[in-house]
Amino acid sequence: MRDVFQKELAEIENGLVEISQLVRDAIERAAKAFETSDVALAESVMSDDVQIDMKANALDELAINILARQAPVARDLRVVVSALRISASLERMGDLAAHIAQLARLRFPEQVGPVAVRETILKMGQHDIQIAGRLVELIDTQSDEIAEEIKAADDQIDAFHKSIMDALLAEGLEAQAPQVVDATLASRYHERFADHAVSIAKKIQYLTSGDWLTDEECAQEA
Amino acid sequence: MRDVFQKELAEIENGLVEISQLVRDAIERAAKAFETSDVALAESVMSDDVQIDMKANALDELAINILARQAPVARDLRVVVSALRISASLERMGDLAAHIAQLARLRFPEQVGPVAVRETILKMGQHDIQIAGRLVELIDTQSDEIAEEIKAADDQIDAFHKSIMDALLAEGLEAQAPQVVDATLASRYHERFADHAVSIAKKIQYLTSGDWLTDEECAQEA
Repeated sequence: MRDVFQKELAEIENGLVEISQLVRDAIERAAKAFETSDVALAESVMSDDVQIDMKANALDELAINILARQAPVARDLRVVVSALRISASLERMGDLAAHIAQLARLRFPEQVGPVAVRETILKMGQHDIQIAGRLVELIDTQSDEIAEEIKAADDQIDAFHKSIMDALLAEGLEAQAPQVVDATLASRYHERFADHAVSIAKKIQYLTSGDWLTDEECAQEA
Repeated sequence: MRDVFQKELAEIENGLVEISQLVRDAIERAAKAFETSDVALAESVMSDDVQIDMKANALDELAINILARQAPVARDLRVVVSALRISASLERMGDLAAHIAQLARLRFPEQVGPVAVRETILKMGQHDIQIAGRLVELIDTQSDEIAEEIKAADDQIDAFHKSIMDALLAEGLEAQAPQVVDATLASRYHERFADHAVSIAKKIQYLTSGDWLTDEECAQEA
């Protein structure tokens, strides 16, 4: 019984790693489609998102199944509940990558975003790709160091987002309304993408920090 | 033991109703702050959001606690897991109401949004208030009819969102960039608010639909 449970927990953790790899690929291809106005690539990101949704659903079903059959407690229970929440964030990150790809497709053959902020949006894309790559490692290793790195990278994304908003709100901006709409949405999508990564990092830190309690602290907690 | 469990399940359901009432109040006040450029009201929506976050967290802790101590199965388990997901959506709806309020505050003393789409944004606000009101009833009664109403109301919200995007993307729009940014974000926030309501409606329908299985179907499922 215990072995089955450990095997199923490992299955959940592997499933999360796999979904996070799909999310990393999605944001990488979405950012490229955005940068190069590649409609075919954009469309593939949008249609492939269903894979992420399906895998997230399957993982949720497995987690609920484990809760029903194994009735885990303490840390095991938190691992399963956290997996449900992490899969929800990953699923949403996939949606956001698809939204970014969609901007490129809708604006084709024009480039997306006004010149004044386009470079910064592309930088946000590169940062989100890096964050997604670190997230795969984080879910795999549960390294506290990587979790902190992701939080710091999100601060940089927030700074980019603010600078784009400031540029769009500044007097005398040379831009047509559609470009302003695109830049606003792109910046917002990239910012939310990183927010979800931070939310996952915090959940994993919360889970792992339980292991660092000394015996004495454990006794006080009980 | 069984009585304690039923009491705790009721506590969870009451907690969700209470949070949904706070969300309804938040979107009502946010839409009013947006319409009337009322900075004090906007700030109160933003600062009160912490109440929603805290209540959602407390409810999550209760749900996890129930999983640990009662190890519910079948429908009871799905109720508890669904409560975790519904509270996450409600918490996010509170955030979105605060974002809408923030737009009003940032733009004061100007009105938010270009004239061409302002009326439609205000309509979205009125629709989101209605949806939030129905959501309170839905969580309380789990009425399938109300769930369907919320889905239909979301179709209307999507149509408003599309018409605002079309207007912003149309040639010859008379609007400054900051107004375009505000309208894009406001429309997006209202649309996401309604999306979360639909997501909750679907979860509740999924939960309740289990009750409609005939005994024969239940036997086949087991």
